[in-house]
Amino acid sequence: MSINDIKGGITSPRGFQAAGVHCGIKKAKKDFALVYTAAPAVGAATFTTNVVQAAPVLVDKELCARGGRFKALAVNSGNANACTGERGMHDAWEMVRLTAEALNIRQDEVLVSSTGVIGQYLCMEKIAAGITLSAQSLGTDGTSAAEAIRTTDTFTKEAAVQFAHNGVTITLGGMAKGSGMIAPNMATMLAFVTTDANIGSDALQEATQRSVVRSFNRISVDGDMSTNDMVIVLANGLAGNPGIAKPAGELYALFTTALEQLLVTLSKMIVMDGEGATKFVEIRMLGAASEKEADQAARAVANSNLVKTAIHGEDANWGRILAAMGYSGITFDPALVTIHFGDVPVLGQHYAFDFSEERAKQVLSQREIVLTIDLHRGSASATFWTCDLSKDYVAINANYRT
Amino acid sequence: MSINDIKGGITSPRGFQAAGVHCGIKKAKKDFALVYTAAPAVGAATFTTNVVQAAPVLVDKELCARGGRFKALAVNSGNANACTGERGMHDAWEMVRLTAEALNIRQDEVLVSSTGVIGQYLCMEKIAAGITLSAQSLGTDGTSAAEAIRTTDTFTKEAAVQFAHNGVTITLGGMAKGSGMIAPNMATMLAFVTTDANIGSDALQEATQRSVVRSFNRISVDGDMSTNDMVIVLANGLAGNPGIAKPAGELYALFTTALEQLLVTLSKMIVMDGEGATKFVEIRMLGAASEKEADQAARAVANSNLVKTAIHGEDANWGRILAAMGYSGITFDPALVTIHFGDVPVLGQHYAFDFSEERAKQVLSQREIVLTIDLHRGSASATFWTCDLSKDYVAINANYRT
Repeated sequence: MSINDIKGGITSPRGFQAAGVHCGIKKAKKDFALVYTAAPAVGAATFTTNVVQAAPVLVDKELCARGGRFKALAVNSGNANACTGERGMHDAWEMVRLTAEALNIRQDEVLVSSTGVIGQYLCMEKIAAGITLSAQSLGTDGTSAAEAIRTTDTFTKEAAVQFAHNGVTITLGGMAKGSGMIAPNMATMLAFVTTDANIGSDALQEATQRSVVRSFNRISVDGDMSTNDMVIVLANGLAGNPGIAKPAGELYALFTTALEQLLVTLSKMIVMDGEGATKFVEIRMLGAASEKEADQAARAVANSNLVKTAIHGEDANWGRILAAMGYSGITFDPALVTIHFGDVPVLGQHYAFDFSEERAKQVLSQREIVLTIDLHRGSASATFWTCDLSKDYVAINANYRT
Repeated sequence: MSINDIKGGITSPRGFQAAGVHCGIKKAKKDFALVYTAAPAVGAATFTTNVVQAAPVLVDKELCARGGRFKALAVNSGNANACTGERGMHDAWEMVRLTAEALNIRQDEVLVSSTGVIGQYLCMEKIAAGITLSAQSLGTDGTSAAEAIRTTDTFTKEAAVQFAHNGVTITLGGMAKGSGMIAPNMATMLAFVTTDANIGSDALQEATQRSVVRSFNRISVDGDMSTNDMVIVLANGLAGNPGIAKPAGELYALFTTALEQLLVTLSKMIVMDGEGATKFVEIRMLGAASEKEADQAARAVANSNLVKTAIHGEDANWGRILAAMGYSGITFDPALVTIHFGDVPVLGQHYAFDFSEERAKQVLSQREIVLTIDLHRGSASATFWTCDLSKDYVAINANYRT
């Protein structure tokens, strides 16, 4: 049974509508997105592990904890509603109330999300306008919603996958935004996934957590973890498959694989659109004693400013990779490590580093680069995605608010 | 009793000579330094905690573990002799042997150090020439040695302090090099300190460790920890003070304070010369439950690329500071935190952020900036030093080897 990438996004699964509009938080670009399903959906979510959590994160946590069903998701960009205290909490709840009112649904059926500048109050008149306008504009065009959740993103991120099981077709669609403050450990960005799968709450939550660990938690742009990040998955059951009640069995496994495939696709899009990024880097850490160890070593390499600038400069500086692994906290024998840039070996065991600078440079001149590192300790592995660090990253972030 | 900063460096304490020469590892600049004391010195050292350790680090660890006395320290720049395997170890021991021979001293009286590119073998002909030439050039000019240990440093880093106790004057001098791969946790750079204090090995080691924790371990340029870093302190006893046998008592305390003052001065120089840095930032983390907690929170702020780019852009983006503290791993109530930029309050308790952008901008436009953050949890504090992240950092590191 194959899982197929299809063209589409959050409106690809049956029964989901969406809209993306401009309500004035940003000067001219779309800044408000609404996702709606008339058939109530089971929800699953993972949130930022930052101690500082934005108001919509706190609100959604409370709503998800109630274990209810959801019909709508309202998202604004341009303002994170983070570090805004009681007033921010009031505004987030008001965003819930206004959305419920506009769609004529219950307040506990609405989830909300915000992304943008920290430490500014939401302008509720604009939010109200965004809700009204987007509720009137609901349709099958998921792209406009994906556009509306962008901040410094240079392209819109949406994807969809589909698979069939016993004659039933199940579709999953998603949209995401990056592209700064991207660090591992929980979904350090926003991603919203819809599916028509018929799946229970516990199974959906388990599948979401498993998939996030191997997708959004394995990407890094700058090592900074945001206050607002969340992944929300809504499943409205309209595919009509026999219900996946528990996190077990063939269909559950298939669904989880499809979800992971979708989240990895969205994760890679976020990295490709990393602020100022000119290169997409896949780090394959092999030969580890455990997946955790592989993850930890790959993470240190992915987050190293020196590695990222060397890749930006197309400099085959493998020493910086080994140095980053050396402070990652794992135990290993550096003399056993081998490193490939693409298919070019740049470091053999016992520090054999007599490689062709020319061939390595050729690999590094590409837009997409695979680094394969083998610890030669065991058989576990992990794949991590990151980008280079460019002058443009600095330019973008030096003047973000102004 | 006051501890006075004086003009000087490693040759300021009695009995120390030095030289800095060009031996051809670099194209034109000085690349070999030698420090010598005829009176044998007690040595103390701290080394990188990176799993990947350069050959000279391994050699010095072995020499220091023997607990002997030292007369010479030989340092080359331009090549780190790191990740060079058995041949690198052989070369480092050969550097010891040649230095001992040139100075007519025992091999276990020599320490060695290297800094520069990782993953290239030392050219031993050039090293031998550097040893011969520097041994012939020994004198009271410490600055030439400080020049010779530079890599991408834009200025020479040396400092000295002096204090008197019961009529005896004790002097400490030091030199250091940065200026990339600077991260906390052990001395992520090279620093060499000489003193004429009469002090025992255990007391000197204890004083060194205590001082390093509050100086070199509290600075950050890019969060990358090197394979070669070390701090070495040599004490030849020529001041003639009553010997400090144990890490206790008034004179020990005074000596440790003087050492910390010297190391903080050198640490700040390294940060000021951070690759591409245009601003020097002091982070004062107050009101913590413990010094460890204060250190941890300050460290996360100091290492945040988003904080560093905001400061580069003179943008009073306090939200990024709070977000960095939020993922630092400490527990705190964000609503209680207050933040000052210079003397301008930018965040009051309960997210009071109605500050003057103009006054904050004025503070951030300075070359040296103090950020004061109060957790309002307890009475412990820690000070950390860092720099901004500029486009030049990227430019320098993208093309380091070429």
